[in-house]
Amino acid sequence: MFEGPLQDLIDEFSRLPGVGPKSAQRIAFYLLQTEPEDIDRLRAALAAVRDGVTFCRICNNVSREEVCRICADSGRDKATVCVVEDAKDIQVIERTGEYAGRYHVLGGALDPLANIGPKDLAIASLLQRIGGVQPDLEGEAIPEIAEVILATDPDTEGEATASYIARLLKDFPDLTVSRLASGMPLGGDLEFVDELTLSRALTGRLKL
Amino acid sequence: MFEGPLQDLIDEFSRLPGVGPKSAQRIAFYLLQTEPEDIDRLRAALAAVRDGVTFCRICNNVSREEVCRICADSGRDKATVCVVEDAKDIQVIERTGEYAGRYHVLGGALDPLANIGPKDLAIASLLQRIGGVQPDLEGEAIPEIAEVILATDPDTEGEATASYIARLLKDFPDLTVSRLASGMPLGGDLEFVDELTLSRALTGRLKL
Repeated sequence: MFEGPLQDLIDEFSRLPGVGPKSAQRIAFYLLQTEPEDIDRLRAALAAVRDGVTFCRICNNVSREEVCRICADSGRDKATVCVVEDAKDIQVIERTGEYAGRYHVLGGALDPLANIGPKDLAIASLLQRIGGVQPDLEGEAIPEIAEVILATDPDTEGEATASYIARLLKDFPDLTVSRLASGMPLGGDLEFVDELTLSRALTGRLKL
Repeated sequence: MFEGPLQDLIDEFSRLPGVGPKSAQRIAFYLLQTEPEDIDRLRAALAAVRDGVTFCRICNNVSREEVCRICADSGRDKATVCVVEDAKDIQVIERTGEYAGRYHVLGGALDPLANIGPKDLAIASLLQRIGGVQPDLEGEAIPEIAEVILATDPDTEGEATASYIARLLKDFPDLTVSRLASGMPLGGDLEFVDELTLSRALTGRLKL
């Protein structure tokens, strides 16, 4: 629709998740009218991520080093591993300040409709970590993993992934396997809670 | 929230119009997991727009050359100028196949609340074009402009801009000034047309 480079840029932006052709057009026109320095900053940020961000050898978290900040932190409990779908989820859990263990990033959830099977997720490396073939910092003793917290999303795919991994982890009899509690979100209103959440909250009711 | 380069990229994307922090995060993670070649293609497209796209010397349209394809097209009627807010609007009008004249891109609409006044728009250059000081292709005779079609958006800012320019154009007695017709959108349903549009359609009713 537009001439050469502008249309190319619109096409490139359209490929990004959550950016439709209309938003891509809007972004391209914005950049066209912006200072060249702004475009250069965006290009530099892209290059820095391309070259400078990798995945942690231990937990698969995004990292600038071979081992991420959390895995490299000697103050953290190495016997507990919290399994999450995405590196983004780590930030959410970190913000609670309630968790001092390590993580394992699966890189998604099982989703047969989208052709995502166990081989597409970092499940084999999780089993290796638990089985003692745990990669770790040079020269450090490898601690045994005592607990795995399954913190995949509370949706269909996340639940299926948690059940699948829980089944595999039955091979490790000494391992504690837990799942994040489901129930009423705090600050919520009973009236507006969906039935599935409410039935979970009832099933999992706690004695006071 | 994230480590260095990844957060920088999220920040850069957040600056783009219509991209919130959540979408920026999603895009950054998508790029992280994509092939380096995809990032390179986006970077190249950005560089090409930075270096290769400019604004037409005559009409202010986006262009790869000093004069855009439409102004350079000798088959088009140079006596008619259609005034639009944005270069995007040109594509919409071109798609109708009904217009064979040239354009003039204002670069926005008058909007006192956003501090956009006449000096921020390409109104002076429009008056120069009409006044005969029309920049044109080297060596070509400069044709006189006989009609100006005001095709700014049919919203408050666009209407105000059209009235403002129409008032200025009264200085050119031989010039025909017109505005795009307002009324019922075709394929619409009377029931769902807003009152303002309907009242415009009534006022501007045509004898059959």
